[in-house]
Amino acid sequence: MLIVMRHGATEAEIQKVVAVIKEMGYQARPMPGAQRTAVGLVGNDGRVDASRLEGLAGVQEVIHVSKPYKQVSREWKVEPTVVRLAGAGGGGGGGGVTVGGTEVVAIAGPCSVESEKQIVTAAQQVREAGAVILRGGAWKPRSSPYSFQGLGRPGLKLLARAREESGLLICTEAMDAEGVRWVTEVADIVQIGARNMQNYSLLKAAGRCGKPILLKRGLSATVTELLLSAEYILAEGNQDVILCERGIRGFDPTTRNVFDLTAIPVVHKLSHLPIIADPSHGTGLRDKVIPMARAAVAAGADGIMVEVHPDPEQALSDGAQSLFPDQFAQLMREVRVIAEVIGRRVAEPAPVGA
Amino acid sequence: MLIVMRHGATEAEIQKVVAVIKEMGYQARPMPGAQRTAVGLVGNDGRVDASRLEGLAGVQEVIHVSKPYKQVSREWKVEPTVVRLAGAGGGGGGGGVTVGGTEVVAIAGPCSVESEKQIVTAAQQVREAGAVILRGGAWKPRSSPYSFQGLGRPGLKLLARAREESGLLICTEAMDAEGVRWVTEVADIVQIGARNMQNYSLLKAAGRCGKPILLKRGLSATVTELLLSAEYILAEGNQDVILCERGIRGFDPTTRNVFDLTAIPVVHKLSHLPIIADPSHGTGLRDKVIPMARAAVAAGADGIMVEVHPDPEQALSDGAQSLFPDQFAQLMREVRVIAEVIGRRVAEPAPVGA
Amino acid sequence: MLIVMRHGATEAEIQKVVAVIKEMGYQARPMPGAQRTAVGLVGNDGRVDASRLEGLAGVQEVIHVSKPYKQVSREWKVEPTVVRLAGAGGGGGGGGVTVGGTEVVAIAGPCSVESEKQIVTAAQQVREAGAVILRGGAWKPRSSPYSFQGLGRPGLKLLARAREESGLLICTEAMDAEGVRWVTEVADIVQIGARNMQNYSLLKAAGRCGKPILLKRGLSATVTELLLSAEYILAEGNQDVILCERGIRGFDPTTRNVFDLTAIPVVHKLSHLPIIADPSHGTGLRDKVIPMARAAVAAGADGIMVEVHPDPEQALSDGAQSLFPDQFAQLMREVRVIAEVIGRRVAEPAPVGA
Amino acid sequence: MLIVMRHGATEAEIQKVVAVIKEMGYQARPMPGAQRTAVGLVGNDGRVDASRLEGLAGVQEVIHVSKPYKQVSREWKVEPTVVRLAGAGGGGGGGGVTVGGTEVVAIAGPCSVESEKQIVTAAQQVREAGAVILRGGAWKPRSSPYSFQGLGRPGLKLLARAREESGLLICTEAMDAEGVRWVTEVADIVQIGARNMQNYSLLKAAGRCGKPILLKRGLSATVTELLLSAEYILAEGNQDVILCERGIRGFDPTTRNVFDLTAIPVVHKLSHLPIIADPSHGTGLRDKVIPMARAAVAAGADGIMVEVHPDPEQALSDGAQSLFPDQFAQLMREVRVIAEVIGRRVAEPAPVGA
Repeated sequence: MLIVMRHGATEAEIQKVVAVIKEMGYQARPMPGAQRTAVGLVGNDGRVDASRLEGLAGVQEVIHVSKPYKQVSREWKVEPTVVRLAGAGGGGGGGGVTVGGTEVVAIAGPCSVESEKQIVTAAQQVREAGAVILRGGAWKPRSSPYSFQGLGRPGLKLLARAREESGLLICTEAMDAEGVRWVTEVADIVQIGARNMQNYSLLKAAGRCGKPILLKRGLSATVTELLLSAEYILAEGNQDVILCERGIRGFDPTTRNVFDLTAIPVVHKLSHLPIIADPSHGTGLRDKVIPMARAAVAAGADGIMVEVHPDPEQALSDGAQSLFPDQFAQLMREVRVIAEVIGRRVAEPAPVGA
Repeated sequence: MLIVMRHGATEAEIQKVVAVIKEMGYQARPMPGAQRTAVGLVGNDGRVDASRLEGLAGVQEVIHVSKPYKQVSREWKVEPTVVRLAGAGGGGGGGGVTVGGTEVVAIAGPCSVESEKQIVTAAQQVREAGAVILRGGAWKPRSSPYSFQGLGRPGLKLLARAREESGLLICTEAMDAEGVRWVTEVADIVQIGARNMQNYSLLKAAGRCGKPILLKRGLSATVTELLLSAEYILAEGNQDVILCERGIRGFDPTTRNVFDLTAIPVVHKLSHLPIIADPSHGTGLRDKVIPMARAAVAAGADGIMVEVHPDPEQALSDGAQSLFPDQFAQLMREVRVIAEVIGRRVAEPAPVGA
Repeated sequence: MLIVMRHGATEAEIQKVVAVIKEMGYQARPMPGAQRTAVGLVGNDGRVDASRLEGLAGVQEVIHVSKPYKQVSREWKVEPTVVRLAGAGGGGGGGGVTVGGTEVVAIAGPCSVESEKQIVTAAQQVREAGAVILRGGAWKPRSSPYSFQGLGRPGLKLLARAREESGLLICTEAMDAEGVRWVTEVADIVQIGARNMQNYSLLKAAGRCGKPILLKRGLSATVTELLLSAEYILAEGNQDVILCERGIRGFDPTTRNVFDLTAIPVVHKLSHLPIIADPSHGTGLRDKVIPMARAAVAAGADGIMVEVHPDPEQALSDGAQSLFPDQFAQLMREVRVIAEVIGRRVAEPAPVGA
Repeated sequence: MLIVMRHGATEAEIQKVVAVIKEMGYQARPMPGAQRTAVGLVGNDGRVDASRLEGLAGVQEVIHVSKPYKQVSREWKVEPTVVRLAGAGGGGGGGGVTVGGTEVVAIAGPCSVESEKQIVTAAQQVREAGAVILRGGAWKPRSSPYSFQGLGRPGLKLLARAREESGLLICTEAMDAEGVRWVTEVADIVQIGARNMQNYSLLKAAGRCGKPILLKRGLSATVTELLLSAEYILAEGNQDVILCERGIRGFDPTTRNVFDLTAIPVVHKLSHLPIIADPSHGTGLRDKVIPMARAAVAAGADGIMVEVHPDPEQALSDGAQSLFPDQFAQLMREVRVIAEVIGRRVAEPAPVGA
């Protein structure tokens, strides 16, 4: 940490900064410059509260040299984290799927679980095309209290049914600590949605649930904040965190969000955690999902999460951004080749009955 | 709602849109234009899911003519909502304070409750200067799991103690449904923080808690989304919602946030709910708090929320944006005159012992 | 400047950084830290190109401790710049107006010059209400090539006519170097618009034109970039630069722009140049102009720039954000009181015939 | 265009809107709705000024149904524009290159022209790897007046020299109308930089220069604004416009810009003009350029523009985002395969001496 003094800061002001740093238990190293003095804080263990220093007289700004996160960083763990997904019953069809290694995984399915027929059909269709994980919301966070909010616990049962039928792994969202308990009973991956990325009560519950977590980037979250939210989960003892880029807020109303694919190589450099991309929410428009899913894999994503609905025109939510099943199949064919260009391969579902 | 067809959309595509609208229970009114046809959806009750229409063949875009919120809108209720704050014990010092009428209220105090001495001293100091409500967090949402997270329930007891000593009303934050129950026992206003603006489980709990709610605007929330989150609270039966502008995410690192004061007249036009402004979080810098608090009142805010600490240099959180008590007193003097310019007056604390 | 090395950077990499700094003519000061080494660059004269250092092996990031601008900074000149506006003919009605001292100036008038009657009437109306400078565009930068682009040179003649009739000073925009020559013949202040804030050919021409410059902040410009653009003008020898906040790009379509009033105290701290605010473009909505103009003065703006049209419903451009003359008169009454609260006073036009 | 009236707008207010629309020469079609009335404006030829209607009493908002641009739209011209690049001397090495057809072109070279040796070496290196067009700035728009501003006209001569040596086509930037004249003498493509995207004097000069134009998206430009700026060029008679996504302003300081690759399929849908992507400026970081260049091609870009320097550590500008020549060669190998996945192929330079 570097405390930059104002041009013309007095010696007394500099000494006060030095004294406060020492009082906080660190070493202070003043560095006079041509235009102003800076004071280095040495020994930063990631717990220094800059706020106290920022407010001192004569201080112009405090510059963070160390990253504020710890366990999620590449410096803490150089090797990439490979999340191993255990199929239900310990040894099911999805038992061999990994996220963060050489495989690129496809997570696909409808926005929300609507009926047994819908979710089972969707599961079979996306499996056929090459997905290994089924997505589908039992609880849906919606901006309006009057929009469809999901089936709730009955939706979880339908997901379990779809897993039995298809052999796919299940990824579904929990919206509060109570929901984490319910979701954990059924899901192979517990999703934390973008709106809840800084819901710390929920993050702590996720950290203690014993299942891998899919943590979506908040609409206005920096990569640093995304990693700090993941740090909450690791700090509770859960190492199996998969990050997800799903679009950030931008100024252009042409697309729902700005799909920030550069976050993928950025995260890979700063952290050992895997990161996937969700072009359905990232763009909000069906005909943009296919090119941007390809782009995500070309950028190095560890997986893609795509909304696919057996009949998008009848969907209860997000119909306009859901792919038709045959569009998804075409996408998977393209994505397989692109993965190979960069030395990876798309994870394939186990043969039915395996 | 207006469904705009693409240039060159076929008659069959237009008829499909008309049919779907009718199937959804509304009237459809096609309007051929010079360049393209649009189809008006008449009878929108605020529950139409545009997504189903957006995905139909030949549709270029769906334009929302009606607002997606209902009970929070000026059209639902023309008269401004005046939130009446009942002092503890029914008739205490704060019993007469209102938010949203002609009065402008000052909410002030430290970022977080640190000790009895700190919070009681702060309460007395801000009361002396003219605040009628004490702020102070018992639970603090922090980006890093390693930062000070607040005293928790013991902090609530200290707030109760400060109220007894000062006669001020109490405003403090709840971070989950369990927290709402605890906070409700002590606080006169339950705060929902910016990071939780779209934590719907929390909003629903707030809607059922029986106390006025202070709902802070999320970092990347549009005014429409802020109003929709308020709608969640009203939909549960709680009409006493005070909104709060506290800065939105921007691209310039010079200030922590962009303090969007225009949101104040915008909310006043769209909604009957009161809105206050928090220049401490809005700017993140002590020397910007005073001019921007004045600006907030000049823009028509129903109140200001300001961080004041007896000794900012020793604060456990947000020290750099906390005012010294004498700065706050000076601010209150300026704000009183500005309020009068626009036909309002600053609410004054009841005489001690009243 | 501080060059932060990656955790685990080798000694050779650190020495290479030291060597390059020396080769560039500065001193290098390595500082080993708990987690990584940083190398201070001492002697930075504002001309160091960080890019060369950023690309070296082992470098994590380069942190700018010194500001990149020079002559516009408070450190270069502590006293605020007071721009003295000389009336045409040396001693006209506006001869005594200053921007950046204790006075708060009002610049008002229509978006564009449309006819002699329109501009002369507008001049008389805004003068009556208390403006000292008339605004009005002869050239209008418009997003669409098919929108009204202004009257051009004939518009300048009409502005000259309005000055004769009203005694007001004239502020009008130039869009290229040739336009600067024409505008300089007539205007008392040459305006550079937001879209041209980084049009460096234009900035250099403005720096050599011999008239005060009003430099508007670009839609996505940081305060640092605004100050760097002003530096281009000062570097050509023109000290009389007035900055203008006029709204930045944001994510909420409710208002045209985000009116970033915090930029006012921020600029006042970093620079000696005066800064005014334009709530008409800042909000884009007539009924938001009045509260936000009040807020700008409360935040410490050295002036306000407001669109006023004799008949807004007939305006050829920006009608929806132009005030009616009587609204402007009411605004000026409110603004006079607010200016006094913070120890300033609104500049009044000289008596007619003075 | 749809004029939405406020809830409770009077019949007189609605009739006034109808009257103004007719006075403007269009048809008005009132549509009473459940909550409010809307008035359709029929016959919009793209020249309607909404501002006049927005300001009328009782009007809530004006919704644009038609696109504001014309000649650049898909509706004006369904077939994609294929820009044919004529080599200097009519028949040189680049004579057969096209942008916007099935070929994907690579434009590569240093940020700025520094010396004959540097630019000729760079040209040979990027040609070897597979680029068909050489980039390199003779004039450089720099935020600071103290940064290297380019060699100016002597730089153009060096570019001509590099073309002779390598057979590559030349793309270089012009910063004002005078610069357009000079650049046109040498360049095969005249570049308009991001900061000048709304410099209308420059756009008009570009529209009359007789050479293909590369128009970069401004930092805070919406896609609509980018297309409107292109419309300025087409309106002057120049159809050969290539758009370029190069990153937009975002809130996360981790990368210089947000590289908005979704703009590629968005532009392809709205317009017939080709669009390429510049990952060097889009990300600002060398190790992000390669994955994001791959992603751009996977997303459907008609080309990529990449900064490559023979010795990035010695570059006078943008060294940290310039690729080493062997990195660029590796990138080209990967990009060739990805292009084929989506039915395209990378344009190859003509054999030397052809």
